[in-house]
Amino acid sequence: MSEATKKRGELIVLSGPSGAGKSTVIAELLSSRPDIHFSVSFTTRQPRVGEENGVNYNFVSREEFERMIAADELLEYAEYVGNYYGTSLKVIREQLDRGVDVLLDIEVQGAAKVKEKCPEAVTIFLIPPSVEELSRRLHGRHTDGEDAIAQRLAQAREECRECHRYDYLVVNDTVVSAAHQLQSILEAERCRTPKQLHLVESFLHDQNG
Amino acid sequence: MSEATKKRGELIVLSGPSGAGKSTVIAELLSSRPDIHFSVSFTTRQPRVGEENGVNYNFVSREEFERMIAADELLEYAEYVGNYYGTSLKVIREQLDRGVDVLLDIEVQGAAKVKEKCPEAVTIFLIPPSVEELSRRLHGRHTDGEDAIAQRLAQAREECRECHRYDYLVVNDTVVSAAHQLQSILEAERCRTPKQLHLVESFLHDQNG
Repeated sequence: MSEATKKRGELIVLSGPSGAGKSTVIAELLSSRPDIHFSVSFTTRQPRVGEENGVNYNFVSREEFERMIAADELLEYAEYVGNYYGTSLKVIREQLDRGVDVLLDIEVQGAAKVKEKCPEAVTIFLIPPSVEELSRRLHGRHTDGEDAIAQRLAQAREECRECHRYDYLVVNDTVVSAAHQLQSILEAERCRTPKQLHLVESFLHDQNG
Repeated sequence: MSEATKKRGELIVLSGPSGAGKSTVIAELLSSRPDIHFSVSFTTRQPRVGEENGVNYNFVSREEFERMIAADELLEYAEYVGNYYGTSLKVIREQLDRGVDVLLDIEVQGAAKVKEKCPEAVTIFLIPPSVEELSRRLHGRHTDGEDAIAQRLAQAREECRECHRYDYLVVNDTVVSAAHQLQSILEAERCRTPKQLHLVESFLHDQNG
């Protein structure tokens, strides 16, 4: 494949309320699509039990995060439940240029900023199957008190109000089916006409030649 | 699921030049998605060897076809290489209302008319991997002389010029991969936000209640 027709990677943005199961669905997706680059966000929040620096997030101090903002090193950043979350521009650009698909797990404010800067980004909103199930999952984590859970449920409601801005809505009924739907979306997006027109152009040139 | 939230079927339009392998890809798709209703077109052309009336096409006389045109019984119809091809409106409407996905195999003029009347239709253009391969397939059929093949190749070139009007382009490298891409497109289209918003509405109502 020549440089001229080399495909750029797809930028995929996944959002969804806390407890929707994004991390689990992403892990399932990456197990069958290890070629996807999962962009590890930067955050100032404390790691949860089992979370690793550089894997789940790049955990940095508030001071370091504010330095990155000032140096314009972030594609987007936002403050959410008192903590900063942000995405490194440099890493993403390199991967997309190499033809690698990049997956971002970011909240709705960040997603809106990415879509504004990169309208070709494919945005997907993951929702839990019901409020009862979301509440059950948040309680099951045993990491938040009742107040924090109530705050997360209220936040979830706010976030769901923004879901109409996304290209796709995926219901996380089961991890396997949700991950399969993400895979289908990625495969379908690769087939969208503007991204495939170079194939037909060569076809027409062959016929004329 | 209540009547109010019952999903309407998807209307899927598949086009592609003669020899692109539409029939084979459709057969492969329907083998894994037998719930899809394949809309059998009406035509005035002669059946090819192995084609069955009511399966590949509803083969009718020119006189009968012109009666259907006059009676406004067709969603679209077109004349192509000297023969009429058309789609029954009644059958499609019934299936879509029942929530069944309907697949149409029609040429570019007909597809344009369907998209005009039903903008929500998902349109897919199937292309052969190369001109050489298309020519090889047309010769391999042993049903057309050199003149007819030359006419089909010229027609294919014309049709490919219209492919930018389609939502998706799928290259028929192998039947299995092309059918898989069609399946992914159908699954992805079901996840498009406007078609899923009713799920989030009930979610929000639950939370407020």
